[in-house]
Amino acid sequence: MSESTTPANLTIDGPRLWSTIERSAEIGVGRPGGLARLTLTDDDRTMRNEFRDWCTAAGLSVTIDAVGNMFARRRGRDETLAPVVMGSHLDTQFNGGRFDGIVGVLSALEVVRTLNDRGIETLRPLEIAMWTNEEGARFSPPMIGSAAFAGVHTTDWVHARRADDGALLGAELERIGYLGDARVGGRPLDCYFELHIEQGLELDARQIPVGVVTHGYSVHGFIVDVVGETAHTGPWPMDRRKNALVGGAMLSVAINDIGWRHHATAGKATAARLVAWPNKPGILSDQAQFTGDVRHPDPATADAMRDEFLEAVTDAAARSRCEMRVAEQWSWGADIFDASMVALVRDTAKRLNIPTFDLPSQAGHDAYHIATIAPTAMIFTPCRDGITHNNHELTTLEETVPGVRVLLHAVLERANRPV
Amino acid sequence: MSESTTPANLTIDGPRLWSTIERSAEIGVGRPGGLARLTLTDDDRTMRNEFRDWCTAAGLSVTIDAVGNMFARRRGRDETLAPVVMGSHLDTQFNGGRFDGIVGVLSALEVVRTLNDRGIETLRPLEIAMWTNEEGARFSPPMIGSAAFAGVHTTDWVHARRADDGALLGAELERIGYLGDARVGGRPLDCYFELHIEQGLELDARQIPVGVVTHGYSVHGFIVDVVGETAHTGPWPMDRRKNALVGGAMLSVAINDIGWRHHATAGKATAARLVAWPNKPGILSDQAQFTGDVRHPDPATADAMRDEFLEAVTDAAARSRCEMRVAEQWSWGADIFDASMVALVRDTAKRLNIPTFDLPSQAGHDAYHIATIAPTAMIFTPCRDGITHNNHELTTLEETVPGVRVLLHAVLERANRPV
Repeated sequence: MSESTTPANLTIDGPRLWSTIERSAEIGVGRPGGLARLTLTDDDRTMRNEFRDWCTAAGLSVTIDAVGNMFARRRGRDETLAPVVMGSHLDTQFNGGRFDGIVGVLSALEVVRTLNDRGIETLRPLEIAMWTNEEGARFSPPMIGSAAFAGVHTTDWVHARRADDGALLGAELERIGYLGDARVGGRPLDCYFELHIEQGLELDARQIPVGVVTHGYSVHGFIVDVVGETAHTGPWPMDRRKNALVGGAMLSVAINDIGWRHHATAGKATAARLVAWPNKPGILSDQAQFTGDVRHPDPATADAMRDEFLEAVTDAAARSRCEMRVAEQWSWGADIFDASMVALVRDTAKRLNIPTFDLPSQAGHDAYHIATIAPTAMIFTPCRDGITHNNHELTTLEETVPGVRVLLHAVLERANRPV
Repeated sequence: MSESTTPANLTIDGPRLWSTIERSAEIGVGRPGGLARLTLTDDDRTMRNEFRDWCTAAGLSVTIDAVGNMFARRRGRDETLAPVVMGSHLDTQFNGGRFDGIVGVLSALEVVRTLNDRGIETLRPLEIAMWTNEEGARFSPPMIGSAAFAGVHTTDWVHARRADDGALLGAELERIGYLGDARVGGRPLDCYFELHIEQGLELDARQIPVGVVTHGYSVHGFIVDVVGETAHTGPWPMDRRKNALVGGAMLSVAINDIGWRHHATAGKATAARLVAWPNKPGILSDQAQFTGDVRHPDPATADAMRDEFLEAVTDAAARSRCEMRVAEQWSWGADIFDASMVALVRDTAKRLNIPTFDLPSQAGHDAYHIATIAPTAMIFTPCRDGITHNNHELTTLEETVPGVRVLLHAVLERANRPV
């Protein structure tokens, strides 16, 4: 089966897709309209169980790897060929929406169900991937499951991650029954597709249903450790203070200022997390840790923002009289996606008469890690006013179906291409 | 017995005093040389038990009130007269020293033991007070036991305070066996003496053993609630962000700047605590709470610093696009101590040929609250280089004994003055 034999009017069952999204929206309910389904919690287990049961009912064989990534496999005519993989994540932020990640996983399920309905086989096997802890809301870093699959982290390192609530990731995997025995990564994928809500303003503003993700924003992230000295908040003179909280606050304000300096060219910079210790009335804090990042569509400008932040670290260390050390630094983005995969998404939409818009991804995604080991493309669908990581995150069946149709046809094209 | 009949060479047993301080230093050991004896923990119970046993062995009757304040009473010749009270606290900060508060309570015990040794009775009863949660390191606010005794808080309100570890103050009192049945406050005290390490640089720099505390620094404290909106750290444009962490960080930097502006005239301003939520990678925080204060020896300047901070709140709210609300505001200090009590301390030292130095208290103390219901004075003893709320806090037997002698004689003078 190839392009010529797949009818363009083959489409998915929108209401059936939406029923799975609505069931997901009942699990780990957060603020009104939103979800707080943190990774490896009881709610995450409930959602994983539901997803596993749906996959099993669709005839897929489900395997779990040692970091809890789930793979639901549909046999291909030639099982010796590497699988075409679609996926995303089912965990959410503390104040998350009902769609971020979830639409990607459940669209992949709907693609498989559609093929089952029509009795359509594929040359290559298909897999739905559900990656552990994409959000990083409970365990740092985010995208840990896909990163481990791509060889960035060892399984032992992932298991040793500790949540703010004290739990160990490995122990939580075991507790909820998702410490699988499959090896993490180390096997070829034919390719990877990730459908995701845009989490930006472009598609909704233009009323275009499908975003062709050409590349990522260049992102530089930082964790900075700040070390000062405890002392009494009363008598201790200003010129002897080494208040680590003040040092961390200076970094938070500085990175926000950097974002504003580059706002006119769509730059963003974020103070995401600041933890101080003891962080109590009456005592100056002697430890703080800052987490933040800078992003820009232009890699050279992103590099300049990174340099501005590193200068701000030096400046804040001097002004707060604290020691500062960049404990971790990471970069993402730029040209990560496979040109032929991106073209396939664009061409497939064109064949289906679905309008598209080329745009970069501003957020990080599991696809960024998988792109390092397999040809990867992302498909964006609209979200209302770009609101995300917020209970008011919103999209509709009508806005989502065109993207899922593109996913279906692109997957078929790729899965059936001649060996 | 009065001044004329109390021999000036009556003195305390320094090594015995120090042995109690050394025993205290074994309970709730923290970083090297320091203590982490947080209020109402198992370690606090151990220390309270030890103190209770010492008091009982010294013939004192110990009562516990409903907020866990302990009172160890030595009978007077006229039990109808209000007691002369000496005291301080036995809890410490997370990174606390061995002396802050502890020296005051155990000096009072040593005063009683000395009187017992000599068979000296007093006209008025004496009491040693040990106040609950002076530090505020586990439960906010600090000085909660003395404040409740002075009528600032109700017992129920105190019991409902929740620690960052989730524990309720009332439940923790019960758990460690110090939920007493005595009424909180509501009874007359003849007067209150609190001996305390200076927690400042003056006595150590001048090599003077006793500080006569004339007044308090004027302090204005604030808790500011910051409300923003969660959103994605990636795509969300800078001009739509309401990052509560950035708002709180702006307050932290601003208050530190205010301290520096008034540094030349001994002003201090502190960012003590900043908590944000969710405070995680990938999401902007929609809630933050800032706690800090400004202090100055001159009340008018302290008021000006307060006004500068309140302007900074308005400014930070505008710049961060967050809502900010001063949820709590408090003031201490200035002329809180009783002139005749302060003179008694100074005159007693003079009579004993002990050099003194008049100085204000820069920190808050239980004495501040008790001063509102009874004539109160504080006696400061030296601490090395002013270091406190730090495991390197240090003082010695030799530096401490002169202050305890002043306490002994001032207490006798007050306890025996004619009715």
